[in-house]
Amino acid sequence: MRELLEAVADGSLSPAQAEAELNGYVTGDAGRFDAARDQRRGVPEAIFAEGKSADQIVALAETALETTDRALLTRISPPQFEALESYVDETIPDATIERRETTVRVMAPDYEPPSIDAAVGIATGGTVDGPVAAEAEAVCLDAGVTIDRVDDIGVAALSRTLDQLERLRDADVLIVAAGREGALPTVVAGLVDTPVIGVPISSGYGYAGDGEGALAGMLQSCTVLSVVNIDAGFVAGAQAVLIARTIAAARD
Amino acid sequence: MRELLEAVADGSLSPAQAEAELNGYVTGDAGRFDAARDQRRGVPEAIFAEGKSADQIVALAETALETTDRALLTRISPPQFEALESYVDETIPDATIERRETTVRVMAPDYEPPSIDAAVGIATGGTVDGPVAAEAEAVCLDAGVTIDRVDDIGVAALSRTLDQLERLRDADVLIVAAGREGALPTVVAGLVDTPVIGVPISSGYGYAGDGEGALAGMLQSCTVLSVVNIDAGFVAGAQAVLIARTIAAARD
Amino acid sequence: MRELLEAVADGSLSPAQAEAELNGYVTGDAGRFDAARDQRRGVPEAIFAEGKSADQIVALAETALETTDRALLTRISPPQFEALESYVDETIPDATIERRETTVRVMAPDYEPPSIDAAVGIATGGTVDGPVAAEAEAVCLDAGVTIDRVDDIGVAALSRTLDQLERLRDADVLIVAAGREGALPTVVAGLVDTPVIGVPISSGYGYAGDGEGALAGMLQSCTVLSVVNIDAGFVAGAQAVLIARTIAAARD
Amino acid sequence: MRELLEAVADGSLSPAQAEAELNGYVTGDAGRFDAARDQRRGVPEAIFAEGKSADQIVALAETALETTDRALLTRISPPQFEALESYVDETIPDATIERRETTVRVMAPDYEPPSIDAAVGIATGGTVDGPVAAEAEAVCLDAGVTIDRVDDIGVAALSRTLDQLERLRDADVLIVAAGREGALPTVVAGLVDTPVIGVPISSGYGYAGDGEGALAGMLQSCTVLSVVNIDAGFVAGAQAVLIARTIAAARD
Amino acid sequence: MRELLEAVADGSLSPAQAEAELNGYVTGDAGRFDAARDQRRGVPEAIFAEGKSADQIVALAETALETTDRALLTRISPPQFEALESYVDETIPDATIERRETTVRVMAPDYEPPSIDAAVGIATGGTVDGPVAAEAEAVCLDAGVTIDRVDDIGVAALSRTLDQLERLRDADVLIVAAGREGALPTVVAGLVDTPVIGVPISSGYGYAGDGEGALAGMLQSCTVLSVVNIDAGFVAGAQAVLIARTIAAARD
Amino acid sequence: MRELLEAVADGSLSPAQAEAELNGYVTGDAGRFDAARDQRRGVPEAIFAEGKSADQIVALAETALETTDRALLTRISPPQFEALESYVDETIPDATIERRETTVRVMAPDYEPPSIDAAVGIATGGTVDGPVAAEAEAVCLDAGVTIDRVDDIGVAALSRTLDQLERLRDADVLIVAAGREGALPTVVAGLVDTPVIGVPISSGYGYAGDGEGALAGMLQSCTVLSVVNIDAGFVAGAQAVLIARTIAAARD
Amino acid sequence: MRELLEAVADGSLSPAQAEAELNGYVTGDAGRFDAARDQRRGVPEAIFAEGKSADQIVALAETALETTDRALLTRISPPQFEALESYVDETIPDATIERRETTVRVMAPDYEPPSIDAAVGIATGGTVDGPVAAEAEAVCLDAGVTIDRVDDIGVAALSRTLDQLERLRDADVLIVAAGREGALPTVVAGLVDTPVIGVPISSGYGYAGDGEGALAGMLQSCTVLSVVNIDAGFVAGAQAVLIARTIAAARD
Amino acid sequence: MRELLEAVADGSLSPAQAEAELNGYVTGDAGRFDAARDQRRGVPEAIFAEGKSADQIVALAETALETTDRALLTRISPPQFEALESYVDETIPDATIERRETTVRVMAPDYEPPSIDAAVGIATGGTVDGPVAAEAEAVCLDAGVTIDRVDDIGVAALSRTLDQLERLRDADVLIVAAGREGALPTVVAGLVDTPVIGVPISSGYGYAGDGEGALAGMLQSCTVLSVVNIDAGFVAGAQAVLIARTIAAARD
Repeated sequence: MRELLEAVADGSLSPAQAEAELNGYVTGDAGRFDAARDQRRGVPEAIFAEGKSADQIVALAETALETTDRALLTRISPPQFEALESYVDETIPDATIERRETTVRVMAPDYEPPSIDAAVGIATGGTVDGPVAAEAEAVCLDAGVTIDRVDDIGVAALSRTLDQLERLRDADVLIVAAGREGALPTVVAGLVDTPVIGVPISSGYGYAGDGEGALAGMLQSCTVLSVVNIDAGFVAGAQAVLIARTIAAARD
Repeated sequence: MRELLEAVADGSLSPAQAEAELNGYVTGDAGRFDAARDQRRGVPEAIFAEGKSADQIVALAETALETTDRALLTRISPPQFEALESYVDETIPDATIERRETTVRVMAPDYEPPSIDAAVGIATGGTVDGPVAAEAEAVCLDAGVTIDRVDDIGVAALSRTLDQLERLRDADVLIVAAGREGALPTVVAGLVDTPVIGVPISSGYGYAGDGEGALAGMLQSCTVLSVVNIDAGFVAGAQAVLIARTIAAARD
Repeated sequence: MRELLEAVADGSLSPAQAEAELNGYVTGDAGRFDAARDQRRGVPEAIFAEGKSADQIVALAETALETTDRALLTRISPPQFEALESYVDETIPDATIERRETTVRVMAPDYEPPSIDAAVGIATGGTVDGPVAAEAEAVCLDAGVTIDRVDDIGVAALSRTLDQLERLRDADVLIVAAGREGALPTVVAGLVDTPVIGVPISSGYGYAGDGEGALAGMLQSCTVLSVVNIDAGFVAGAQAVLIARTIAAARD
Repeated sequence: MRELLEAVADGSLSPAQAEAELNGYVTGDAGRFDAARDQRRGVPEAIFAEGKSADQIVALAETALETTDRALLTRISPPQFEALESYVDETIPDATIERRETTVRVMAPDYEPPSIDAAVGIATGGTVDGPVAAEAEAVCLDAGVTIDRVDDIGVAALSRTLDQLERLRDADVLIVAAGREGALPTVVAGLVDTPVIGVPISSGYGYAGDGEGALAGMLQSCTVLSVVNIDAGFVAGAQAVLIARTIAAARD
Repeated sequence: MRELLEAVADGSLSPAQAEAELNGYVTGDAGRFDAARDQRRGVPEAIFAEGKSADQIVALAETALETTDRALLTRISPPQFEALESYVDETIPDATIERRETTVRVMAPDYEPPSIDAAVGIATGGTVDGPVAAEAEAVCLDAGVTIDRVDDIGVAALSRTLDQLERLRDADVLIVAAGREGALPTVVAGLVDTPVIGVPISSGYGYAGDGEGALAGMLQSCTVLSVVNIDAGFVAGAQAVLIARTIAAARD
Repeated sequence: MRELLEAVADGSLSPAQAEAELNGYVTGDAGRFDAARDQRRGVPEAIFAEGKSADQIVALAETALETTDRALLTRISPPQFEALESYVDETIPDATIERRETTVRVMAPDYEPPSIDAAVGIATGGTVDGPVAAEAEAVCLDAGVTIDRVDDIGVAALSRTLDQLERLRDADVLIVAAGREGALPTVVAGLVDTPVIGVPISSGYGYAGDGEGALAGMLQSCTVLSVVNIDAGFVAGAQAVLIARTIAAARD
Repeated sequence: MRELLEAVADGSLSPAQAEAELNGYVTGDAGRFDAARDQRRGVPEAIFAEGKSADQIVALAETALETTDRALLTRISPPQFEALESYVDETIPDATIERRETTVRVMAPDYEPPSIDAAVGIATGGTVDGPVAAEAEAVCLDAGVTIDRVDDIGVAALSRTLDQLERLRDADVLIVAAGREGALPTVVAGLVDTPVIGVPISSGYGYAGDGEGALAGMLQSCTVLSVVNIDAGFVAGAQAVLIARTIAAARD
Repeated sequence: MRELLEAVADGSLSPAQAEAELNGYVTGDAGRFDAARDQRRGVPEAIFAEGKSADQIVALAETALETTDRALLTRISPPQFEALESYVDETIPDATIERRETTVRVMAPDYEPPSIDAAVGIATGGTVDGPVAAEAEAVCLDAGVTIDRVDDIGVAALSRTLDQLERLRDADVLIVAAGREGALPTVVAGLVDTPVIGVPISSGYGYAGDGEGALAGMLQSCTVLSVVNIDAGFVAGAQAVLIARTIAAARD
C-alpha cells in the first residue's frame, strides 16, 4: 500500500492506475471502468460505444489504456471513431489501431498481447452477419485465441454449409451467427461434436423480424446449443474465450 | 326449379338436398353447411369438431352425408367419435368409417370417391407432428389425390433428411410439418424444385413455444415457402388439393 | 472437368462461371451467389438489396450477370439503383434494365428469357400494396410466367371486388396482397377454385398495424389460403412460379 | 328523507332499497350493487358471474331483485345456475327465469319490463359465436329493445352473407360477432348505412388465436366500425341499447 | 344509361362522373375512389394521406372534387398540403380550404354542405390528443353534424373532468380521446347516459406506450364503451356520424 | 460464538436457531429459510405456497416457527392448509392460526407481535380483488401496522369512490388494488397527497386481460404512483410496511 | 371572492392567478395547467416537454411561473430549451435557470423554495441511466428534499455495489435506476431496510431491450420493491417526495 | 457390410442394431431413434417424454436400450414411469433404474458408463428450480462428468450466494438455474472466471412470468453468459458435457 502511494507520489503510477490496483475499478468522468475484469473474469472489459458521446468514448478509452495498455470498443460509429483516432494520434502516436467493421482495438506500443492455445471457429449465414461476427472476432483476438472465420454458408443452399464442415470440426468452440430463421446453428450443431454458441442476427422483416425469428429458432433448436442475445457478438466472443481459456489451461 | 320442388314433393329429394342445390348451403340446427363448397372451391367442406357438442357433430355430419354422401371431420375427440359412430351404425350401417388420429371420414355406401391424377408428399419432423399430418392426409385422400408420407426426418440428424430426398422430389406438391424451430421445410425447400407448404406444429416450450418458433422460422425462411397457421393440417391439405387439381387438369 | 479448366485457361470461361458450374455457387467479395438456384430450385436467385451498400449491390449484380446473363434485384433504393445503372451503362451498354417500383431486372443482350405456359393473377387491395405486388410480378416475369394484375379491389367497397371475379378466376394461381385487416384473400378464396397465396402488407396503424393484422387475418382465414411473410412479394411470386412450372410441365 | 326512513321503520321499504334510493348503490356481503345504474347510465347493472362463488351469485341476485325487481347475470356456470334457481324457487316462486346459453334473466312477478321503440340486429359468423351473441341479446331484451338475430353468415361462403343483407339493413344498430379472421363486420359495414359494433370472438387457434386475429381485423378495418373487447357481448349489447334509447327518444 | 353517355359525349359530364354514377367508384391513376360511399354508407369517403406521394394526393383530391364537389383529407403532411393548395388555387380558385391540424377539407364553390340535426361531443384528455380529435371533428362537420369540443379534461385533476359534465351530457353521442392510461372515457361513460366512443391516443412511453395502455384501458373498461383503433379519429367521427344520422332521421 | 454452541449442546437452542443466528438463514429439507430477513430488511420472510408440496409447506413453516416464533404463508391451497393445520395442532396446539382468504399466519403462544405507529389504507375496486388485498393486509398486520380496508369503490360508479375519500386521506400510505382497466389508483392518487402503491389484479378477459390492462393503466398513469407486479399483494404490503416503519421511526 | 375580483380589476392579480385560485387550474392556449397540484397532491406539476412545440413549452412555462413562481420541465430538447431561455431572459431576467441533462427548473427571483427534512438516495447502474436519474433528482430538489446520488454501481462488478452500501442505507427512501437486466434494485433492496423504488431504463438491445428486461426483472424481483414505468424518473422522484413529506411531517 | 448382415442372419445382432450401425438411426414404431448421436455429437440421445403415450415411451426406451445399452428419459410423468418400470422389470430385470425428479436413466446390466475428467457445477436459486436442475444433472452423470450441485442461493439474501462462491469457482463449467427475475447467473458470472450457462426457470407470475423475466434478465445480462431456453435443463447439461469433453480431452 505504502509502495503504491509512493509510486503515485513520484509520478510513476497515475492515480487511475493506483485506484485500479486498489479497487479493481477506476472512477472517471464517464463512469467507472472495470480494470480488474480481466483478472477476475478472464475476459477484458470492453467499451460499448452505442449511445455514448464522442467525449465519453475518448475518456473511457483513455482510462482503459492507462490501466490496461489497450482498449477494446464495440458498436463504434464513424464520428466516435474519428474522435478516438484523433485522441490516440495526439497522445499515443505509436499505438496500434485495429478496426474491424464497427469494432476497434487500440494497443499501446508496450502492450504485450496474451496468447491462448485454443481455436475458436466463427461461422456466418450471410453478408449481413458481418459486423456482429467481427465483434466476436475482436474479443477473441484481444484475448489471444486463434480464430478461423467461415462466411456465407447459410442453409438455403445446403451444399455451401456441408462443404465447410471439416473446417468447422477443427475448432475447439464454434460461434455460429445467423439471421432470418436462424437455422444454421441447428444444422451445424447436429453435425459436429464441438460446443456451439448461437448468435441471432437482427435481420429479417415482418413477423418475428429483427432477429426474433432467429432467437426463437435457436432457443427451440432440437439440437444442443447455447445462445446469446440478438446481435450480441461481444458476449458470444467472450463466452468462447472463457471456454478456450479452460481448454488451454488443461492443455498445459 | 319446378322439377326440384316436385322431387321434394314426391320425396325423392330431401328438403336439405333441395336447399343445397338452390342455395349452395343448408341451414340445419347446428349451423349452415356449405354443401356447394366442393363445386365452388374445389375442396370439400370439412367439419371442425373442436368446441362443438357431440349433438352438433352428429347433426352436421348428417347434413353432410345427406347432401354430399360423405363427411370429413377434423379434431374429433373420443366422445365425439363415439357419438358419430353410434349415429352412423344406426342410420347408415353400410357406411365406411375411416379414422386417422383425430380426423375421420364417413362415406355412404353409394359414395363414389373422386380421383385426381397428382401426388402430394407429406413429410414430418418427428412423432409429435403426426395428428396434424394425418389431417392433411385425410383431406388429400378425400379429394382423390395420391399421397406419399415420409415421417420423422427432422434436421437434428441431417442424414435422416437427406436419405429421403428422392422420395420428396417425386411429389407434385410437398407439405412439410415441423415443430420446435421449424427448420425442416427450409432445408427441404432448398433442395427440391417442388412447391413446399410449411405447417408449423404447436410443439416446443418456453420462449416461442407452442409453434410460434416454427411459424417464425417458416415465415422468415431464406428459401421459398408458403405457410399455413400453426397446426392447420386441414388448410395445408386443402391448398395442396387445389394445386394438385390444377396440375391434374393440365395433364388431361 | 478438363474441358472446363481449358475453357478457363483460354479465357472463354471466367473463373466465376467455372466455379458456378462446378460448385453451384460463386464466391465473390460481397458473399456467395447461388448461381445454380434456377436449376436446383426452379426459381432464379434474386439479390435482396435492403441493408447492402451500393458497392455490394454492383458486385452481386456483376456475378449474377456473368453467370446467368441476368440479374433480379428487390427492395432497391434510388442511390443503389443509380450505382447499378452506371455500372451497367459502362460495362454492358446493350443490356436491358427494367424497373418496377423498387424491383429491377437487368438482362444482358444475349439473354434468352424463359417462357412458362401458365398464368399468375396478382390482386391488390389498395394503392399502398403496389411495391410488394411489383416484386411478385417481377419474379414471375423473370421466370417467363404470364401475369394478369388487378389493382385496388379491397372489400370495403365489395362491388369493386366482385366486378373483377371473372379475371381472377382465369388465373392458374392467384397472389392476393392486402394490408390493414387483410380480408381480401379470404373473400377472393371463398369465391374461386384457384390456389390463393396471401401476402400481408405492412400498412395499417395502431394495434396490429404494420401488417400484423393482415397476417393474423390470413392465417386465421376460414377459407383455404397459404401465406407468406409480411411484404414478402418475392416469396409469393417465386412460390407461384414453382406451381406454374409444374402446371406448365403437365400441359406439355 | 324523513319519509324514506319512516318507510324503512314500518317495513314497507327494506334497508337495501333505502340505501339504493339514497346512495344509488347497495352495500351487500358480496360487494356493492349499482342499483342506480339504470337511471344514471341508461343500461341496467348486470352481474358478471365468472370467478364468483355460487353464494356470491345468489347474494348479488338477491340485492338486484330487491332493489330493481329483476336480475341479469352473464357467464353463469351450471352449478351457479342451479344455486340461483334453487334460491329463486324458494323465495320468489312466481318469478320468471329466462336462460339463453350462459346468460340468465330473473324477473319478479311484479316486474314491469321497459320497452324501447328501436331495433337492434345481431349477426354472427358461425355456431361458435352463439353464447356471446346471446349475452348481447339478453341485455337488449332486458332493456326493452326489439331484436333481430341472423346467424351463421360468415364470409367464407359470401352468398350466405349477401342473402341476409336486407334484414341487416332494417336494424337501427347492428352488432356483428365473428371469430377467426373477424372479416364479417367489415364486409357488412361496407354494405349498410347502419352503425355497426363489432364483437371479436375468442375462437381460432395458433397465431392470433383466441380472438386476437378477430380483434385486429376489426380495429384495422378499412370501413367504419367501433369495437368492444373479445367476447364482450354484454358491452356490445349495452352500447346498442344506449344508441337505441337515443333513437327512440328522438322518435317520440 | 343512354342519357348518361350523351352527357359524356356533349361534355356536360366528365368520364369520371359517369363512371361514379354507373359503378359507384372511379378508377384513377392513384387508385379507385369510392364516390358512392356517401350514399351507400352514410359517411363520405376520405383520403388517407399517410404514405402517399403529393401527386397521388392531388390526383385523388381531383377525383373527389370532380365527383362529389368536396374532398376530405386526413393525416396530411405540410408538403402534401402545399401541393394540394397549389392545385386548388390554380384549378378551383373559388374553393374553400379548411385546415384543422393534419386534416383538410376542400369545398368547391357550388358545394352545398349537408346538415344533420344531431350533436356530437368531442372530449380530450390533454394537448397531445388534439390532431386526432381534429380528425373526428372534420368528418363530423363534413357530414353536417353539430360539434361541441371540450379539451384538456384528463382525470389526473378530476375536477377538470367533473366541471364539464353538463356540456358532455348535452351531446347525442360522445367521442372521448385519451392517451397514457386512457381512463377518461371510463370515468365519463360512468357518469352520462350518452353512448361513448373511446379513441386511444398514441401517447405514453415505456411499457404499453404508443397508445397500447389506452387501448387496453378502454377495451377492459368496467363501464359501457365501444372503441376504435389507436389514433383512429376519422373512424370515431364517422361512426358518430352514422349514429347521429339515425337519430336525426328519427327526429324528422 | 462459544456461548451459542454451548446452548446448542445443552439443547436450549436448536441447530436451526443457531444457524439462523450465525448465518442469517437456515438450511432445511425444503430450501433455505431467510430467518434474518426481518432484521436485515424490516419485513418478515413469508412462505410463497404456490407450486410447493404440502410436505414442503410444513417443513418451511416448521423452520419459520422455530426461528421466528411465527410463520406467514401466502397463496395457500386448501390441501396445503389442512396439512399445515394438522401439523400445528399436533406440535404447537396453543398456536394461533389466522386465515384470510389464501393467506395464513401462524403465531406460537409465546410470540410477541410487533407494533408500528403508522396506518396503511387498502382499497379495492371490486369483489374479485379480495384475495390479493388480504395478502397485503396480512403482511401489514404481521408487521404491526394499523390497517383500514375500504372495498368495492371502483370508478365505474364514481360516487362510490368519492364517498370514501376522507377515509383514504387518513392513511399514511395507500395500497390500491384494481383489475380490468386499473383506473382506480389513478383517480385516487389524483385526489390525495398520500403515497399510493398500485396493485394490478389478474381479472379482465380478452385483450390485455389477466391484469395486463391494469398493469398498463398503472404504469402509464398521468398521476404519481408506484406499482408492483400483477396480484403481488405481498410485495405491496411489505413495501407499505417499509414506508410505515420509517414514518413511525420519525414519529418516535 | 369579491376581494379576488377586485385584485384582478386593479391589476394586482392576473386573470390566470385568479383562475388558479378559484379552480385549481388555469386554462391557457396550450392546455390547462394544474396550478393547485402542489397543494392537493404534495408534488408540484411538471411540464412534460416531449412532443410539444417550443411555443407550447413557453406558454405552459409562462402560466407555471405566473401562478407558482417556478416551472419544472422534463424531457426538454435543445431547441425547446433555447426558446425557453430566450423567453425567460426577456421577461424575467433575474430568474434562475437550473439545467440537469434534459430537465430544467426556472425560479422567479421572489420564489421561496420549500424545504423537507428527509433524504432521498438515487443510485444508478451505469452512465446511460443519467438523464432519468437527473429527472428524479430535479423533482426532489424542487420539492426541497435532500439528495444523495451514487452513480455507476451496477452488479456486473459487485464490489462497486457493495462499496456504496453504507451511503445507500443512510437515505429515508431509495430510487434505484437500472437498464439491461435491471438487477441492481433487487440486489440493493435485499441488503437495506429502506423502501426502494425501481426505475427501469430503456437501455439494452435485442430481446426485451429498451427497458423491458429491466421492467420484467423489477416486477419479478424476489425482494420487496415498487416500480415505475420505464424511464419514468419524474414519477419515481415525485413518489419519493410524497414519502419524504410524510416522514418529515412525522419528524416535526 | 457382409459381416453385419451375417450377424443379423445368425441372430447375434438385432435388425435394429444393424440399422443403427449402418444408418446411425433406427426406425421404430414410435419414430426414428438417433443411436449414433453419441458418436457424432458427443452427447447421448435422450427421450423427451412430454406429449408422448406410455406405449411410445416404452418403444423408444426399448430401442435405446437395444442399441446403446442405456436410456435417458426427461419430463417423464408418473404413469409413463410406471409403464417404463414394468417393461424394464419384465424384460431386463437386472437393469438399474435411476430416477431424479422427472428424469430417469435406465442402464442395462452390461452397460459400461463413460467417465470424463471434468467437473460441472450446478447452482439453483430456489426450491422450484429443482426438476430442471435434475435434468441437467442426469445428462452430465450419464455422460460421466463429475457434478457439484449447490442449491437455494438466490440473490434476495446475497450472503447465501457469496457463501458458496468458492465451490462455484472450483467447477470447469457452471450451470446456473434461476426463475423470477433470473439475476443469479449475472451475479455469479460477475464473480468467477468459469463459463456460465444460464437456465431460466418457468416460475414467477404476472408480467413476464413463466420464465420470461428470467430469460430476459439472462439475455440482457451485463456480464458474459450464454443461455438456453426456459426450463431447458437437458440442453444446458448437454452443452456443459460438450465443453467438459473438450477440456477432458485437453487434459489427457
